[in-house]
Amino acid sequence: MTTEFNPTCPLPITQHTQVQLAHGSGGKLMHQLIDQIFAHLYEDTRHAPGHDSAVLNVSSDNLAYTTDSYVVNPLIFPGGDIGQLAVNGTVNDLAMAGARAHSLSLGLILEEGLDMPTLWTVCESIRRSADAARIQIVTGDTKVVDRGKGDGIFINTSGIGTIDHPLTIAPSSVRAGDAIIVNGDLARHGMAVMAMREGLEFESAITSDTCPLGDVVMELIDADIEVHCLRDLTRGGLSSALNEIASSTRLSMEIDEARIPVREDVASACELLGLDPLYVANEGRFVAFVPGDQAERALAIMQDHPGFGSANFIGRVTEQHPSLVILKSRIGANRILDLLAGDQLPRIC
Amino acid sequence: MTTEFNPTCPLPITQHTQVQLAHGSGGKLMHQLIDQIFAHLYEDTRHAPGHDSAVLNVSSDNLAYTTDSYVVNPLIFPGGDIGQLAVNGTVNDLAMAGARAHSLSLGLILEEGLDMPTLWTVCESIRRSADAARIQIVTGDTKVVDRGKGDGIFINTSGIGTIDHPLTIAPSSVRAGDAIIVNGDLARHGMAVMAMREGLEFESAITSDTCPLGDVVMELIDADIEVHCLRDLTRGGLSSALNEIASSTRLSMEIDEARIPVREDVASACELLGLDPLYVANEGRFVAFVPGDQAERALAIMQDHPGFGSANFIGRVTEQHPSLVILKSRIGANRILDLLAGDQLPRIC
Repeated sequence: MTTEFNPTCPLPITQHTQVQLAHGSGGKLMHQLIDQIFAHLYEDTRHAPGHDSAVLNVSSDNLAYTTDSYVVNPLIFPGGDIGQLAVNGTVNDLAMAGARAHSLSLGLILEEGLDMPTLWTVCESIRRSADAARIQIVTGDTKVVDRGKGDGIFINTSGIGTIDHPLTIAPSSVRAGDAIIVNGDLARHGMAVMAMREGLEFESAITSDTCPLGDVVMELIDADIEVHCLRDLTRGGLSSALNEIASSTRLSMEIDEARIPVREDVASACELLGLDPLYVANEGRFVAFVPGDQAERALAIMQDHPGFGSANFIGRVTEQHPSLVILKSRIGANRILDLLAGDQLPRIC
Repeated sequence: MTTEFNPTCPLPITQHTQVQLAHGSGGKLMHQLIDQIFAHLYEDTRHAPGHDSAVLNVSSDNLAYTTDSYVVNPLIFPGGDIGQLAVNGTVNDLAMAGARAHSLSLGLILEEGLDMPTLWTVCESIRRSADAARIQIVTGDTKVVDRGKGDGIFINTSGIGTIDHPLTIAPSSVRAGDAIIVNGDLARHGMAVMAMREGLEFESAITSDTCPLGDVVMELIDADIEVHCLRDLTRGGLSSALNEIASSTRLSMEIDEARIPVREDVASACELLGLDPLYVANEGRFVAFVPGDQAERALAIMQDHPGFGSANFIGRVTEQHPSLVILKSRIGANRILDLLAGDQLPRIC
């Protein structure tokens, strides 16, 4: 149960090198784990996990509140890891409500036998990602389950954000005539995880697109773009997001395949695996619905944002085909883009 | 994949009777699951899980915020189930900060192959428990992991509460001279789960003590009891809770074994299994630290509350033995009650 000194992981050599059931028990081992690995994640000691609740001072009556669990397999993949996803994913859900990220909670479910250095790596990634997204982690909890009853690490994050503008950013605000804009090339996250999981090697490295979206959303709002709706393109990809909005608004989303940015190597990888990039998950991509006459200005703001140079105007909302997503293909034919029955890629986030 | 009509579970007979990986994919199956099992858990459709974030109107600047994951095994046990625990546990963490419960998030991690009727039962329990604790569930998320990579259902809840009084209910407010009061008999939750797990039968039924604590806490505060600190007696039991507070305040907690309520059948079951009831988890029990001269009034309020008739004054805070918990045993000897190194009972919540 002891090992050589590992310079990247602060556990003394007398400690366990793997997570034990007792680390989740409320006893001394749990307190050691909190002190040595988790405590420095938290904003200040008043909010440390030894206490039951964080106490927050929030100067807004209008809050966004969201939760997501992360079960991605493998835990670490090209361009990211489960910790980064767990922060960005929840921060992005807040951003999609037009909220400024305020506070994050962190619930870990660890599997007995998990290597401590892996836990340390993921926790460091959580800390860095929270710093990058400028959100404070204020409360947390850790449970340990028996070997074979989990899969390394599952993470739940919930987040609180403040809404400080008068816009109602929601499907109910979408109108016929709205422009549909996507903030960058699609399908990289799903393909990066898939390649890692299946041991595939592509000629060029495909890395996850995971990134925080709060800043670019605030730039749009601060520039007085009348944002009608935002939706991140996670599980089920672009197609599922547009279908959900088409269905709840009873409007039609008409998009143009030639305008949807997909990198060539990603498109080839998708073709090789029989996957449609429009259904593949992204973790740093979203669609924005804005009034048609503000589309150019909104697009310029997105393209100016680091990492979103390939943002594009991909289509329009119409009343032609209620509740449907219509894809105009490269050869000019129209087809209905439906929800998939099942999934292309399980455990992608 | 089809089954007979089950009157308690609303899935049409053409549906899957077990959770499939595709139920977590963002596609049609996931939407069916949301519509049929999850949607009615949520406060209103604006906050339905199809949307990224709930938008809350909160009329308090001072919020409590907490999170907990629940991995109890078995999922259903005498006196409760994982759904009830997941609501009460988080509601109780808010209560321990002196907060009034406002909103709850719900993150489910389901294992492929989980029986739909079990999922339905747990979700119904979540709904009933949230109603009983008068908290609204406003946002949620569901993931599915492969068979053998989870254990039926794991639940994360996070909660937001409002703090509308001037008290600072925290270990830092504990003073020498404070009375320590417990709201009822100890160790039932742990023993109920343990008995179920190990297939033990006791002469009398031992059922979990899980219940919401918000109302009794509000009654104390509304009666102008100057509550210094509250702590629920979950993982690690009374002993761990008192040790954490002794350690953070550098004061001494002196308690009297004869005054600690433990039912006779529970004490016998503990003895049979070699467990100490002071370390066994409870899910509806807490200690309150109040000024010595308000102890009788606080105790009367607790004892008047349904279910807490066995509440008792169990000891005092002193400066005699800094950072230690001292137990005066029934035969009059004093001993130090330490944190356990590991755990008596893994996966108890």
